[in-house]
Amino acid sequence: MAFLYSTRVRFVDTDASLRIHFTAMLRHFEAAEQDFLRSLGLEFQEMHSSGVGFPRVHVECTYTGAVRYDDRLEIAVRVERVGNTSYTLAYAASVEDHPVAHGRITVVALDLKTQKATPLPEMLARRFSEAQ
Amino acid sequence: MAFLYSTRVRFVDTDASLRIHFTAMLRHFEAAEQDFLRSLGLEFQEMHSSGVGFPRVHVECTYTGAVRYDDRLEIAVRVERVGNTSYTLAYAASVEDHPVAHGRITVVALDLKTQKATPLPEMLARRFSEAQ
Amino acid sequence: MAFLYSTRVRFVDTDASLRIHFTAMLRHFEAAEQDFLRSLGLEFQEMHSSGVGFPRVHVECTYTGAVRYDDRLEIAVRVERVGNTSYTLAYAASVEDHPVAHGRITVVALDLKTQKATPLPEMLARRFSEAQ
Amino acid sequence: MAFLYSTRVRFVDTDASLRIHFTAMLRHFEAAEQDFLRSLGLEFQEMHSSGVGFPRVHVECTYTGAVRYDDRLEIAVRVERVGNTSYTLAYAASVEDHPVAHGRITVVALDLKTQKATPLPEMLARRFSEAQ
Repeated sequence: MAFLYSTRVRFVDTDASLRIHFTAMLRHFEAAEQDFLRSLGLEFQEMHSSGVGFPRVHVECTYTGAVRYDDRLEIAVRVERVGNTSYTLAYAASVEDHPVAHGRITVVALDLKTQKATPLPEMLARRFSEAQ
Repeated sequence: MAFLYSTRVRFVDTDASLRIHFTAMLRHFEAAEQDFLRSLGLEFQEMHSSGVGFPRVHVECTYTGAVRYDDRLEIAVRVERVGNTSYTLAYAASVEDHPVAHGRITVVALDLKTQKATPLPEMLARRFSEAQ
Repeated sequence: MAFLYSTRVRFVDTDASLRIHFTAMLRHFEAAEQDFLRSLGLEFQEMHSSGVGFPRVHVECTYTGAVRYDDRLEIAVRVERVGNTSYTLAYAASVEDHPVAHGRITVVALDLKTQKATPLPEMLARRFSEAQ
Repeated sequence: MAFLYSTRVRFVDTDASLRIHFTAMLRHFEAAEQDFLRSLGLEFQEMHSSGVGFPRVHVECTYTGAVRYDDRLEIAVRVERVGNTSYTLAYAASVEDHPVAHGRITVVALDLKTQKATPLPEMLARRFSEAQ
């Protein structure tokens, strides 16, 4: 039931350790979420036009293997939790079927006027529940 | 007549060549501009509240020396040109008095409603002219 | 007993939510670590010349407040744990004394030849223990 | 005769102007080069194993249109010049057939031992000449 996202490790993703920088993995997680949402028919513009933002409120990641320039990085995205006002996606990254990182990111729906948490858009909640 | 900005090269600035990534130098140029503007008493919030944006429309940079992690990077900022609707800042970067990069960035004042170029805010034009 | 690091939020740190991007906070955490290590007299070059690398193996961060362009970001760094082959630093970020994020990053000492965990350099273990 | 690279604008590419950050365009140019090289059968690992690095020595870019989150960005890559020790690639970016940026990046072959320019690897010079 996971969405699969695939990308190449870019030169700007690496650092002087000759490996991927730890924040680059999280950027790829976010790109995977973007394509996952699109695959569910969830349009960013539409969701935002209603005055709701989606800040990340918690992120964690464990790095278990070396990732290098030009590696093909595969990221499996899974809906871990759908709450009333937030959701958590889980990510598992691998290079040639070797696990290299796993983590989760929690996103809250924020009413941009009141700056308070607000219920997830109905369509998003439904699609995520179906994808779980 | 140049404004001097000083920073450390961060690990995320480096790449697998063991040197600074070419885009990281441009990020440091932009940070230098930010502090230069503040030194002139030009408040970002104030300038933006008037519905004017400041997109970069041209950038160029020549890299002449290796820059490595933890190097102290010194950037001299100079007003190269103040036009009616745009300005160009010139940057010269060095590490221990050894030149490592120089470039220029042109910024245009953009009316955010019409998306067309608009005269520079008066205060900014004046301060830049004085600093030239 | 915390080390204090202070910086400005840069334009490249922001995203289309008008706030700081979640990975930018982690880049600032890493910059804070870099200056913390220097404050303890721990030289990066020296530590690395011994064939030891320091990959991040775990990162987590909780975001509790909005951070915007040009905000002065204060980060308190604290040694949370000094193990045999790894250490964990805790970070607490604030803007004008208002907490905006807190997290921790675990770093392992890696023998670059064997690619296995190796005891922390003696000097680093000692300085961290003293700073705890 | 241009190589075409296509990508999505990521959230981390944007900034508080609601548009793409100017350095993000250059990161996409570099990703386009990476895939262009692979399409020519030029293996990064192979080229680097010979003790040659490929630092960017000159970059310039002109931005002509707004690029926003989730836009599909198309980048045409063209070999502009193949010299003895360096090459220049030209880039033209568009969103829905509307030009948004164009630039060029010059890369030099660097002997990593002497830190001096060295002839381009024969295979690379040949492939680039054919692709011109």
